[in-house]
Amino acid sequence: MNIYDISKQAGVSIATVSRVLNGSHNVKPATRKKVMDIIDQYGYTPNAFARGLGLDTMNSIGIICADSSDLYLAKAVYYIEGNLRKNGYNSVLMCSGYEHDSKENALSLLINQRVDAVIMVGSNYIEAEDENNRYIVNAATQTPIFLLNANLDCPNVFCTMCDDFRATQEAALLLLDSGITDILYLYNSRSYSGMQKLSGYRSAYDMREIPCNRELIQFFEGSREDIDGVRHFLCGLREQGLTFHAVLASEDMLAAGAVKYAKINNIAIPDELSVIGYNNSLLTVCSDPEISSVDNHLETLCSRLVKTCIGVLNGEEMPPKVIYSGELVRKATTNL
Amino acid sequence: MNIYDISKQAGVSIATVSRVLNGSHNVKPATRKKVMDIIDQYGYTPNAFARGLGLDTMNSIGIICADSSDLYLAKAVYYIEGNLRKNGYNSVLMCSGYEHDSKENALSLLINQRVDAVIMVGSNYIEAEDENNRYIVNAATQTPIFLLNANLDCPNVFCTMCDDFRATQEAALLLLDSGITDILYLYNSRSYSGMQKLSGYRSAYDMREIPCNRELIQFFEGSREDIDGVRHFLCGLREQGLTFHAVLASEDMLAAGAVKYAKINNIAIPDELSVIGYNNSLLTVCSDPEISSVDNHLETLCSRLVKTCIGVLNGEEMPPKVIYSGELVRKATTNL
Repeated sequence: MNIYDISKQAGVSIATVSRVLNGSHNVKPATRKKVMDIIDQYGYTPNAFARGLGLDTMNSIGIICADSSDLYLAKAVYYIEGNLRKNGYNSVLMCSGYEHDSKENALSLLINQRVDAVIMVGSNYIEAEDENNRYIVNAATQTPIFLLNANLDCPNVFCTMCDDFRATQEAALLLLDSGITDILYLYNSRSYSGMQKLSGYRSAYDMREIPCNRELIQFFEGSREDIDGVRHFLCGLREQGLTFHAVLASEDMLAAGAVKYAKINNIAIPDELSVIGYNNSLLTVCSDPEISSVDNHLETLCSRLVKTCIGVLNGEEMPPKVIYSGELVRKATTNL
Repeated sequence: MNIYDISKQAGVSIATVSRVLNGSHNVKPATRKKVMDIIDQYGYTPNAFARGLGLDTMNSIGIICADSSDLYLAKAVYYIEGNLRKNGYNSVLMCSGYEHDSKENALSLLINQRVDAVIMVGSNYIEAEDENNRYIVNAATQTPIFLLNANLDCPNVFCTMCDDFRATQEAALLLLDSGITDILYLYNSRSYSGMQKLSGYRSAYDMREIPCNRELIQFFEGSREDIDGVRHFLCGLREQGLTFHAVLASEDMLAAGAVKYAKINNIAIPDELSVIGYNNSLLTVCSDPEISSVDNHLETLCSRLVKTCIGVLNGEEMPPKVIYSGELVRKATTNL
C-alpha cells in the first residue's frame, strides 16, 4: 500500500495525506484521524511514510515506444501508465524511434536506470532476424521484459498480443467470399505484427485456393503521417495498370489514404472499392465515408500486460504469452 | 556529459560504452580507446561512470499531461521527452486526467518523487479561479515548474506558450473581413488557453464594431474523441433555427465534426460554410475537404520549454515567459 492507496481509501487528496504524515497543523482533526486509522489498519508506521512519503515503495517501470505521438502507440502508453500508477508504479517513458541502434540504445539506458521492469510498446521491437533481437534477450537477463503486440521466445520475456494473423485472415476471407478477389494489401512496417498480418492475408488466398497476384502486395515507404503520400502512391499503381477492388491496410492511416485516392479518381466506395483499416482509431471516424477497421482491443491488451507485469514483480507464476483476438468493426467502406 | 553523450561522440552504442566501463573483454581495442579518450577529454573518471554507469547524473524530470493519448498532448510529450533525453534527463510520465483533484494528486505524486523539475503539458492545468491554481503555486516552492500553453504569475514557474488570443483573433478577423459575420465559435475547454481563444474571437467583433450574437458561442460537452457527437450537436443548433456561415473551432476534432455536419446537411464547404480548426493535426488532412487550421508551432514551443528548463536547472537566469505566435494554415475549408 502506498500514499496513492491511502488517499483513495480515505477519500482525501494525496496532498492531505502528505500533510498528515508531515505533522502539518493545517488538517482537520477528523481527516487526520481517518488517514491515521487507514495507515494503522494496514500496519504501516507513519514514520516510514514520512521519510520520502513512503514513495520509496513506489518504484519505476520503464516504458519504451518508438514514437509516443503515433495515435496507436500514444493510446497504449496512456493505458499502461494509468494501470501502472493504480498499482503504485511510476512510468519512466523513453521514445526510441524506429531504427535498430536507437532502439538498442533506449533499452540500455532504461536497464541502467534500475527500473523494476521494462515494457516495450509496439511490435516494431521484434525484427525478422534473430540477430537483431539479441539486445532484448541480453536485457532480459537483468530485468523482466514485457512486450505488447510482439512475440519472442526467451526466458524472462512476457508477451501480450492480439492475433493479428487471424484477424487479417478473417478480414481477407470476408472480402474473398463477397466475390472480391483482387485485394490490394497495403502495409508500412516489417515488424513482427506487420509480418503476421501479411501472412494472414496470404493464407486467406491459400484457404480459398485462389492465386494471389504478387503485385497486389504493396509496401508504402513514406512517413506514418503522410496520408496524401498514400493517395499519390495508389494513384501511381493505378496509372501502371494495376486493378484492385479492395484495399486491406495494416494501419488506419493507410486506409484513410485509400479513401482519398478513391475520391480523387471518382471511384465509388464501397461499390467499386472496399477499404479496411487496422486499429479502429479516430481516423476511421474522421474520414468520409467512415472506415471499416479491425479493432484489436488495445485497452484490454494493456490492462492484461500490466497485470502480468505486476504478477511477475510479486513473484507469481505468470504465463509467458497471452493472446487475444481482433474483430472487424464494420463501417461505411465495406459491404460485408 | 552522460553515457548518452559519450556514445554519440564516440559513434558507438550505449551498450558498447557500458561494456567498456564495465571492463568487459568483448570490445575491440580501438573502440575501447575511442571511448576512453572521450571520457578522459571531459575529465570524467571511468570509475565514477562504472558505478551505475554514470546515470546518477541522468536525473529525472516529471511530465504531467491530462491524457497522453490526446493527439495534441501526445505530440507535445513526444517532443519534450526527446529534448530532455538529448540533454541527459529521463522523463517520468504521469497522466492526470482533467479533474481538479486528479491533477492535484498527480502533481503531489511527482513532487514527492524527487524529480528535478515538473513540466505540465497543456493549458488545462490553469483554471479560471486562482484558488484552483494554488496547488501549483505551492508545488513551485519545492520544485521549478514549467507550463506549456498556460500562464501563471508565480516565482519558480516558467511559461512557454503560443499567443492563442491573437491567433484566434486573426482567424476571426479574416472571416469577418471576407463578409461572414455569423461565425459560430465552438469550444470544449474552459482552460486558460480555451479562454484566451474565446476572448480573441470576441475581440475581433469588437475591433470591427460588429455586434456578436451570444448564441453563436457554443460549448460542446461531449468527449474529446466524439466527432459524431459534434455533428449531432451542430444539427441540433440548426434545427433550433440558428444560422451561421462559418465555424471557428478551438480544436481540430470539433472542426472535423463541423465538416461532417455540413456534408450530412448538403451544405457546401467553403461556399456556404467556412471551417477553421486549431492545432493543424493529422485530422485536418484525414478530413475531406482538408481543414484550414491554426498551427501553433508545437515542436518549437516544446524545444524552447526544455531549453528554459535546462537553463534553470543549470542555474542560469531564464525569462519566466516566452510567447510565440500562431499562424493560419489555409486548406480547403476556407476561401480566405
